[in-house]
Amino acid sequence: MPIYTAPVEDMMFLFDKLRNNKNYNEIEKYKEVNSELVKNILDEAAKINQNIILPLAKSGDENPTILENGVVRTPPGYKEAYDKYIEDGWTSLSCDPKYGGQGMPKTVSTFFDEMLSSASLSFKLYSELSIGAYNCIHHHAKEEIKNKYLPKMVEGKWSGTMCLTEPVCGTDLGLLKTKAVEQSNGTFKISGQKIFITSGDHDLTENIIHLVIARVTDSPKGTKGISLFLVPKFNVNEDGSIGSKNGISTGSIESKMGVKGSATCVLNFENAVGYMIGTKNKGLNAMFTMMNLERIVVGIQGLGISEIAYQNSVSYAKERKQGKANNSKSTDSADHIIEHADIKKSLLNMKSIIEGERALCFWLSQQTEVSLNHKDEKVRQEASDFVSLMTPVVKTMFTDMGMEITSDAMQVHGGYGYTKDQGIEQLYRDNRITPIYEGTNSIQAIDLVFRKLVNKNGDIINRYLDMIKNDTNILNEKIKPFVEDFNTNIKILSNFTSWIKEKIQNSKDDASAACNDYLKALGFVSIAHAWIKVLEVSFKDYDNNKDFYEDKIQTAKFYFERVLPRVENHFKTATTGSDYIMNFKFK
Amino acid sequence: MPIYTAPVEDMMFLFDKLRNNKNYNEIEKYKEVNSELVKNILDEAAKINQNIILPLAKSGDENPTILENGVVRTPPGYKEAYDKYIEDGWTSLSCDPKYGGQGMPKTVSTFFDEMLSSASLSFKLYSELSIGAYNCIHHHAKEEIKNKYLPKMVEGKWSGTMCLTEPVCGTDLGLLKTKAVEQSNGTFKISGQKIFITSGDHDLTENIIHLVIARVTDSPKGTKGISLFLVPKFNVNEDGSIGSKNGISTGSIESKMGVKGSATCVLNFENAVGYMIGTKNKGLNAMFTMMNLERIVVGIQGLGISEIAYQNSVSYAKERKQGKANNSKSTDSADHIIEHADIKKSLLNMKSIIEGERALCFWLSQQTEVSLNHKDEKVRQEASDFVSLMTPVVKTMFTDMGMEITSDAMQVHGGYGYTKDQGIEQLYRDNRITPIYEGTNSIQAIDLVFRKLVNKNGDIINRYLDMIKNDTNILNEKIKPFVEDFNTNIKILSNFTSWIKEKIQNSKDDASAACNDYLKALGFVSIAHAWIKVLEVSFKDYDNNKDFYEDKIQTAKFYFERVLPRVENHFKTATTGSDYIMNFKFK
Repeated sequence: MPIYTAPVEDMMFLFDKLRNNKNYNEIEKYKEVNSELVKNILDEAAKINQNIILPLAKSGDENPTILENGVVRTPPGYKEAYDKYIEDGWTSLSCDPKYGGQGMPKTVSTFFDEMLSSASLSFKLYSELSIGAYNCIHHHAKEEIKNKYLPKMVEGKWSGTMCLTEPVCGTDLGLLKTKAVEQSNGTFKISGQKIFITSGDHDLTENIIHLVIARVTDSPKGTKGISLFLVPKFNVNEDGSIGSKNGISTGSIESKMGVKGSATCVLNFENAVGYMIGTKNKGLNAMFTMMNLERIVVGIQGLGISEIAYQNSVSYAKERKQGKANNSKSTDSADHIIEHADIKKSLLNMKSIIEGERALCFWLSQQTEVSLNHKDEKVRQEASDFVSLMTPVVKTMFTDMGMEITSDAMQVHGGYGYTKDQGIEQLYRDNRITPIYEGTNSIQAIDLVFRKLVNKNGDIINRYLDMIKNDTNILNEKIKPFVEDFNTNIKILSNFTSWIKEKIQNSKDDASAACNDYLKALGFVSIAHAWIKVLEVSFKDYDNNKDFYEDKIQTAKFYFERVLPRVENHFKTATTGSDYIMNFKFK
Repeated sequence: MPIYTAPVEDMMFLFDKLRNNKNYNEIEKYKEVNSELVKNILDEAAKINQNIILPLAKSGDENPTILENGVVRTPPGYKEAYDKYIEDGWTSLSCDPKYGGQGMPKTVSTFFDEMLSSASLSFKLYSELSIGAYNCIHHHAKEEIKNKYLPKMVEGKWSGTMCLTEPVCGTDLGLLKTKAVEQSNGTFKISGQKIFITSGDHDLTENIIHLVIARVTDSPKGTKGISLFLVPKFNVNEDGSIGSKNGISTGSIESKMGVKGSATCVLNFENAVGYMIGTKNKGLNAMFTMMNLERIVVGIQGLGISEIAYQNSVSYAKERKQGKANNSKSTDSADHIIEHADIKKSLLNMKSIIEGERALCFWLSQQTEVSLNHKDEKVRQEASDFVSLMTPVVKTMFTDMGMEITSDAMQVHGGYGYTKDQGIEQLYRDNRITPIYEGTNSIQAIDLVFRKLVNKNGDIINRYLDMIKNDTNILNEKIKPFVEDFNTNIKILSNFTSWIKEKIQNSKDDASAACNDYLKALGFVSIAHAWIKVLEVSFKDYDNNKDFYEDKIQTAKFYFERVLPRVENHFKTATTGSDYIMNFKFK
């Protein structure tokens, strides 16, 4: 079984030293979320993840969720762990106190999301979509619905899902066929098939609250005729108690490459009673509130799995002896593989990406909170635009880097990495869903380029580039070489941005064929920006914690020397155009 | 189940148009291996791979090999398919007619290796090591041993293994503990444990001929005290019939991420009777004859799996409709995803790498044959040096690119790529062993840089660079832009080479930390070299087969515009040195 120690020190460093967004610090309701409180929460979080949840990873992989006589059974140990999990209040961490939540900001709950992803992604998925559904109901439903459903969801006694995909519509939701027929009492009867529904059915909670997109009988075709419905597994009585079974059955569950402890269901809706959430035909908008936050969480999954892969690689490299290092001090036997330059390089590559991502994520959590909770609408909007810009970036970069990192972790483990015993290959398989679900990474790149760079509020990407350029006005001499590298890459990214904006107007295929590369270029620069903020503190505060800051500075050095230069290759190749691609005839 | 059509047309193109190595064409014994014969062989090979072996892939994945009461049982269907396989003579394809082989050159057998890797890597592994063992015995054993063992191995009734790895020694064979005690009759008693032994035991053949490295009691420590032994599963009587069981038992078989139909065994040798092959204490040299050829075959596994992943991606992209393409002609529904720029780009990336690799491999097959069979020793040596230079390159590039390609294939398939039904995720899992076994790709990179660039025969890499530069003296105007790109990258590679040679002398850690990048740079340039040779023919012979050659030219264009530029990034980042890496203290 893999080892795991939650990186509480690094998280607290971010919370203490990089919680410096002025707008974030103006949010009234988080004034009392102080360092001591957060440290206590993270210490408790570390305990449950390391001790209770981590062992579920292997259990879920070896005993996948099964469908038995129409009932989905989770792997051994899941139910007991889930009961403890909700008893300790972890589902309620970021929820509104009005419905029983603890009201913690994303600057805290994001750390928990990372730890839980490290410990067991399969287990995490049972509560993750509940939070998504909670957010969606919280933002868009009527008071009556909120009062009826939210307290039980916050408590974790009921869970939630997002039911979007159908056999012929994954990415392209306009093709959706599920129907909603209005009843005389204002409810709807929902009928249709939904596939790839994460936690669509299971035995962990008393009820499951499905959020389902469907087309009302008289609604137009395409994405403009989609409405959103709340459809509970069991109907809920007036008094909040569980009533009769609703018209939903589990057709099958998927047999998958990884996350085998998670139930991925085909759900058949047959005249199931549903309640419309938000406005008719505006269901996609409401759903996307939830989808966007969810996409960031998927990025964090990639970060969490990267962290545990890294920790195990370091540990193994310190134990395993093979071959002599160049400057070997041992006379008669092999050296630990961590002495080999190539292994060190591989480990630093992981570390520099992981810690940069965590810092970027912390910056984004502050922006997200500002976008949701700042009193000034203009400030909210500005933050929201940055969040919306960075959502596809975080989702894609963190999950793709997760593949690079888990793959490198396997290489460090050699043959032992490919066998089941060490659990390393499982990290690789589990992470492999993250570049696919919640919109494949290619879809994210298209979303970024065609919808997020410039929107109705103006030129978001330029505002972002100005902001990060501005952050390099740092006086410290030692940071200069980093800033110079950073500026070189901002310049490349700016040129790339101008090029792609022009192509969006005049040659869409060129832009489409460059989307993925553009996203990567922006992603590597964003992580570099996060590193610059970390370096600023590291140099300024150096004498107070030399070992810690020296580690940061050296890790950053690796990132700037060996990772950041990838930006240029993405720029160069992507801007060669697309005629030779579009004209190609595949036999 | 994945679809697969053997790429016979592309293979015949290479055999007909690029079999232009003067030295190769001087080899007497292959004079009669003509186009018609080869076409017949490949057509038959396509049939057995498409019809009989391809279905075994899924069967082996769903019903992994098991160890039952000390006996290893292969998956359902394997035995019947193997019987047909040897009945049709496929094990004998490249073997010496003296022992019953068909005497085909590697220019032909390599194509078969590729097809078999596409169809089922797990199944392939049961005969692959037999060929390795055959080669080793053929080169190093006494006539008496050859006559006793080779005919049955060529026939496929007996199979072979390579037993190197032990629990504490994978990469570093000097640590090996298995002992060999000489007996009065000149045989040895072998005792020790070997792990990760591919096809170490199974029920497909009557006998298994293990080639085992071990240390004779009075031999020195380290790699200089290793000898090689032939140790049969069943002792073989004087008349060639099967005798008593030898002292070998199967301790366990590995539970792995992929290639589940292949038996990866822990073998315990307890006073097993063994026969020394080659010279005492020179066992590693003898083993490496086999290892080197085997490493190239592992590269070809990556190529084969890439090919089937590509074919399925194209097929799926032509069937699956999602979203509107930029220049959509459909008015009411989505377009096939192959119309999307990003998907086309991904498919061309696969195709341009695969076809370049196949061409490079064909070039290498000719060199290999020259190195083994040319009458002039000097010519043999020169070819041998090139083969030895390119061995780690082909092994690493083709397997790493195999991961890139199978991963991209999953992305093209979206959620369906992650579920078991389509068989795409299996390609990804199966291929994941290839960057690990036969020496991890990092070890290959170290081997390349520290042992292959310059050896006792001189400066091999410079000879190689001169040779490929020489190949660009092509008069055709249309090839010019390709040649210019190629020359730019040769120049970068030359600079990288000078840099790394200097570091090998003066700063080994810098060289070690740059090995992987250097290998990649050389790999991408080598594939570009293969493309230049393909382009030369394509332009010259254009009018005789316009569609085919236009496809080649456009595919090459993609390679030169979007793949080859990666060379520069490898050079830039790798030459930043290693102080900041070596001095890093991992907590």
